[in-house]
Parts: sequence; C-alpha cells; structure tokens
Amino acid sequence: MDERIQKQLNFSLEIDKEKNIFRQTHLSGHGRNENDAEHAWHMAVMAYLFREYANEEVDIAKVMLMCLIHDIVEIDAGDTYAYDTENLKTQKAREDAAKERIFSLLPEDQKTELIALFDEFEENLTAESRYAHAMDNLQPLILNNSNEGSDWKEHGVSADTIYGRHTKTRLGSEKLFEVADQIIQENIRKGNLPE
Amino acid sequence: MDERIQKQLNFSLEIDKEKNIFRQTHLSGHGRNENDAEHAWHMAVMAYLFREYANEEVDIAKVMLMCLIHDIVEIDAGDTYAYDTENLKTQKAREDAAKERIFSLLPEDQKTELIALFDEFEENLTAESRYAHAMDNLQPLILNNSNEGSDWKEHGVSADTIYGRHTKTRLGSEKLFEVADQIIQENIRKGNLPE
Repeated sequence: MDERIQKQLNFSLEIDKEKNIFRQTHLSGHGRNENDAEHAWHMAVMAYLFREYANEEVDIAKVMLMCLIHDIVEIDAGDTYAYDTENLKTQKAREDAAKERIFSLLPEDQKTELIALFDEFEENLTAESRYAHAMDNLQPLILNNSNEGSDWKEHGVSADTIYGRHTKTRLGSEKLFEVADQIIQENIRKGNLPE
Repeated sequence: MDERIQKQLNFSLEIDKEKNIFRQTHLSGHGRNENDAEHAWHMAVMAYLFREYANEEVDIAKVMLMCLIHDIVEIDAGDTYAYDTENLKTQKAREDAAKERIFSLLPEDQKTELIALFDEFEENLTAESRYAHAMDNLQPLILNNSNEGSDWKEHGVSADTIYGRHTKTRLGSEKLFEVADQIIQENIRKGNLPE
C-alpha cells in the first residue's frame, strides 16, 4: 500500500478514539453522557438544516467539516467542560500538543489543511467558524432543554454563565440566538436554571 | 417560535435517538459496539479525506450529508446486519415507514430534500451515492481489521460474503477497493477470515 493512503488510513483509525471521549451533556430521554463523535455528527447535520439562519453566507461543506473535526484534539486533551474554569486554563496547551500529534498522522498537505480548519474554528473570525460555534452551543442546549436542564443543575450553572457562552451563538446567527434566548428564558421560568 | 424553526428543532432532537442504535461493528481496541451516529460521523470525515480516490468527480458536501443521514431510518427500523439474510427481507418495508415518519418532522421542503438524498444513497446510481457506499464499507473494514476480524468471527462470515459486499466499494472507488482487497487478503492469511 502506498505511503499516502497508509497515512490516511492510520489517521482514520486514530480518530475512532473520539468515540470514547465523553462530554458533560446527556442524551435526550435522560440517557448516558454524549461522546465527542456523536456531538460532532449532530452539529454537522444541524449546521446543514439551519444554514438559512446564518448571519453571513457560508460555505456549508466547510462548516460541516469544521463541525466534524473540531473536537479531534480531545482524543489526547480530554473534554473540558464549558463552565470548568480551572481546566479551561490549561486547555490551550493540552490541545495544541494533541493537534500536532494527531494531524501529523496525515499526509503533509492534509495535515496543513485540517490544522488550518481547526485553527479557524478556534479563532472564530470567519463566517463559517462563527456559524459553527452557534451549532456548538445550540446542539447541547436542545439536549439539555429536553432533559429539564439536568446538566445545568448537576454543575450548578446559572443563566448568566449560559448567556455568556451564547454571545458566540449571536455572532453566528441572530435568529438562533433568539431561539437560544427563548429556551433559556423558558428554563428560568420552569426553575431549571437560576437567574 | 415560528413553525418552521420549531419543526427543524423537533427533527434535530428526534435524530438524537440515532446514538442509541447499535451496530454489529466494535470500536477499535476491542471496544464496545459502535452506534449509527458515530458510524455516520466517521464515514463523513473519511469521505472528505479519501475524496481524491473517488472514481468520478463528486460534490463533497452532498456526499458528507448523505453519509451523515443515511442511517436515520434505523431509529425506528433498527440496524440490519449486512450479513443477516432473514432480517434483510423485511428491511425495505421497515425503513420506508421510518423514513416517512422521521423526515415528516421537517418543513416540507427539507423533508423532500432529505428523502431525495436518502433515496439517492439507497438507489446507488449517482457518483456521490457510489462513493458514499465505498465509505459505508471501508469504515467498518478498518475497525474490524484493527480488531483481528473479531466481528467476522462472531458472525461466522466468510471472505466470499465480504467480497460480495465490496463490489459496491469498487463502483465508488477502484483504488479503495484495492485497499479493501489487500486488507481482506491479509485477514485470510492471518486466519481471521475463512476463504
């Protein structure tokens, strides 16, 4: 087998491990914790379905791929809960090392391309990355909403903290921020979320 | 919330259930069974990485979306193992009913679009669907290969049966069929797969 395709296969097998990285979010129906691969899949499908609400025109293939790969570094670095201030301090260093190791399994051109796409998501300066971040926020919100806010309750998260996160949703989609706002307000009213 | 976006949210929540549909394939490292959402995620990433080997030029956004949604009907119809001849007989009817129920959660235009894409995958007559099928075959092959063929052994599957399935791989990618062939031959040599 030639070297290029062997590298592509090695990377493909390596990312299988993303299915073992579990998040704090639980599946609907008060299910088990969700893993990163499932979260990425869900985000990518939603990105396609909701694309009419992006603030700016987006290259949807790029958005979907960005969603699909945005958590690959967590294979080494682990999932850092969005409201875990302590682990958030070391997140960047852990993820940089992981990024180098994992994407280096690919042929050089694809390594460069996927790292650029990963960095673009992180930097959040383009239409595609801003819209992808809206998905990264909306997807766990609809799961958590379906579970009466059980993940927020477990972590003692307040509405203020969630609104802080959703400032990024607004950069990607005003319309989806309105949706998030309605869902958050409803959960405050129901007592699922302290103000 | 307006009706259109409510429908899109309902569908997005419904497909969360795909994470509970487990396949016969096991994760690498002799892990647990893989679920449909993880399988679809893995296929979509691989589709992007291996697109240079597609027999025909493909619209990669379309291929990725096709990979992402191709198993949604299994939420109702369950997973039918590729080598389970008994359940394969009723698969079509079960999946047709599921298709109508699940995609009807969407606004009419998106229902029509996604059903068309789902049907295109099933009919396997276009460049995109043929290439997506190659991914549907290659993805479990690399997992099974990494686990010394344990899924084949568990189900008493022979090399002939696997070659039968991989005729579809060849329609999508001659190059990836060669890869599959090398992997299958290696597993025969190692005694993981009876000829």
